[in-house]
Amino acid sequence: MAEIIFTSDAGQSLRGLLEARPHAGLFILYAEGIGEKLLGSLNVPDIIDSAVLIPVPQGEEHKSLATAEGIWQQMLDNGAMRNSLIVNIGGGMTTDLGGFAAACYMRSVPYINIPTTLLADVDASTGGKTGVNFGGVKNIIGAFHAPEATIISPQFLGTLPEEEILSGWAEMLKHALLTDGKTLASYLQTDPLRLHGEAWLPLIRESVAFKRGVTHADPRESGLRKCLNLGHTVGHAVEAIFAPVYGLRHGHAVAFGLVTALVLSRLRLDFPSAQLHQFASAVKELYPVVPLNCDQYEKVLALMHHDKKNRGDGLIHFVLLQAPGTPELNVPASDEEIKTALDITRDLLH
Amino acid sequence: MAEIIFTSDAGQSLRGLLEARPHAGLFILYAEGIGEKLLGSLNVPDIIDSAVLIPVPQGEEHKSLATAEGIWQQMLDNGAMRNSLIVNIGGGMTTDLGGFAAACYMRSVPYINIPTTLLADVDASTGGKTGVNFGGVKNIIGAFHAPEATIISPQFLGTLPEEEILSGWAEMLKHALLTDGKTLASYLQTDPLRLHGEAWLPLIRESVAFKRGVTHADPRESGLRKCLNLGHTVGHAVEAIFAPVYGLRHGHAVAFGLVTALVLSRLRLDFPSAQLHQFASAVKELYPVVPLNCDQYEKVLALMHHDKKNRGDGLIHFVLLQAPGTPELNVPASDEEIKTALDITRDLLH
Repeated sequence: MAEIIFTSDAGQSLRGLLEARPHAGLFILYAEGIGEKLLGSLNVPDIIDSAVLIPVPQGEEHKSLATAEGIWQQMLDNGAMRNSLIVNIGGGMTTDLGGFAAACYMRSVPYINIPTTLLADVDASTGGKTGVNFGGVKNIIGAFHAPEATIISPQFLGTLPEEEILSGWAEMLKHALLTDGKTLASYLQTDPLRLHGEAWLPLIRESVAFKRGVTHADPRESGLRKCLNLGHTVGHAVEAIFAPVYGLRHGHAVAFGLVTALVLSRLRLDFPSAQLHQFASAVKELYPVVPLNCDQYEKVLALMHHDKKNRGDGLIHFVLLQAPGTPELNVPASDEEIKTALDITRDLLH
Repeated sequence: MAEIIFTSDAGQSLRGLLEARPHAGLFILYAEGIGEKLLGSLNVPDIIDSAVLIPVPQGEEHKSLATAEGIWQQMLDNGAMRNSLIVNIGGGMTTDLGGFAAACYMRSVPYINIPTTLLADVDASTGGKTGVNFGGVKNIIGAFHAPEATIISPQFLGTLPEEEILSGWAEMLKHALLTDGKTLASYLQTDPLRLHGEAWLPLIRESVAFKRGVTHADPRESGLRKCLNLGHTVGHAVEAIFAPVYGLRHGHAVAFGLVTALVLSRLRLDFPSAQLHQFASAVKELYPVVPLNCDQYEKVLALMHHDKKNRGDGLIHFVLLQAPGTPELNVPASDEEIKTALDITRDLLH
């Protein structure tokens, strides 16, 4: 299983990993635009100088096979081999894309992730899911290829805009919902916008430990791991509609989707009403309103029917909760039930 | 481990496999141009009618990401899901490309191979290596993704041209060299151009069993599996030079490369002279001359230095044999030694 290093000095951790891993050629993929500054902040100029640096253009439209091809071409031009090593430095887009590039070059090259956003810390950078968008569908082309190691350091979080912190926080709320009621209560009492530096470490560690437990038990997403889709069925659809127009963040869409999932859980599995309302209040307080109106429900449903997690019986399947920590996978819901849940979600959040 | 079915009726075997595997959507990828006839010869029109048929354009220039993208688009357009099933019907190009398409769509969809050439029977269709060409390098983008099952039937061999039989035979000779002296002797006494129908089955079964043993022991090619590269270091280089100009087949290049590997084995590891000469005689008798001249040696060396199996120390590494069945992996050889071995190979074969 991939090593995860929690540190406050990612550069020194990287040095240690590189020294312990003989490799023929180091390739550093970094988020273009912000990565240059981050590379400097690692304070390991000798390592940077020894590497082939490959900037990764940012934005969902660049999370594509074309960008992967550009990376492969640069790897080829610079003699990358099976025993070369890739280091991905950036957010989830960079670690997903860099991980995919690593997975398919010579049928897989080892790689290390250094996530620089909260979302990537707790979500994309571990677990081994890699991928690119294709034909308008997110992450539909990809591979399971776990990193050799992930270096998680809060040193990068200080410069993140608030909406980036909130985007990662939504995944942490999801992990808390899947853990137990006590964990959930403690997260709902925390204000993520007031946390700084090393105060993040225990929370990130707890969130990553939860995800690791799940992905370790089911690395190829054949069962249990599906619980991590909690909130994502509606979340992805809402993101597809509002990200291009309003720049809605992934995590904001997930926060909305989590509330809808809890509403459906209330309707279908008798999820406790008090915890639903506490959760919705916290989301309402932290996150901007998602301007969904009922004219857009059909579009939301159409997007969900296309979602890759559905299994061909015409119904949309959800991960729901009987209670915090007690997920039920593959609960089918009719379009009418979903519309009702969207109505209630909007009532709770507007 | 993937199931391998030896049969004389691939259609009925496919029917059995499909009935045993619930799947949401069947996608049949077939070699364009010849596959249409092969589909008919399976004699399962109901299965063909129920499937989405995707022709795969043939030729190394189409073994590309662009072709894979075309397949993914058709899968997406026809609602392929993680629990859909792909069937690849064709030669190694189709099974390699179809396997890669299966590996990366939704991070892997199960697939079944029905190889229709001797080469694909004994080589490409089992073992789980998939891939496409990129940037002028063969199979450099790919994934390890084993088929659910491979259906091997000699029913397709009767219509193959002689050079296709010889191309597959070279891989079978390689497996014999790696097995033991007795197996090698029996292969050297067989004329592959006089074998028909079910007479192929025991030989193919033996050859596949050998490969399976090796790939089972080392699925990701971290050690032992490298022995399967015997003859391929020189073979790939010779193929790269002569395939575009003379249409040289993969197996013909491998037959040449096997002789060079045995010459190097003689020089470096004292491989028995008598077996080298018997092997070279058999190759000379069956295969057309590879018109390599000494002006092209530098090009051969340059191509080998680029070969993905090399490890960055500047020397070319070979799989050699101390004797039939006793391979030694990663034997470095200098450019001068290689040139000498090419001289001797040409003497033996011209």
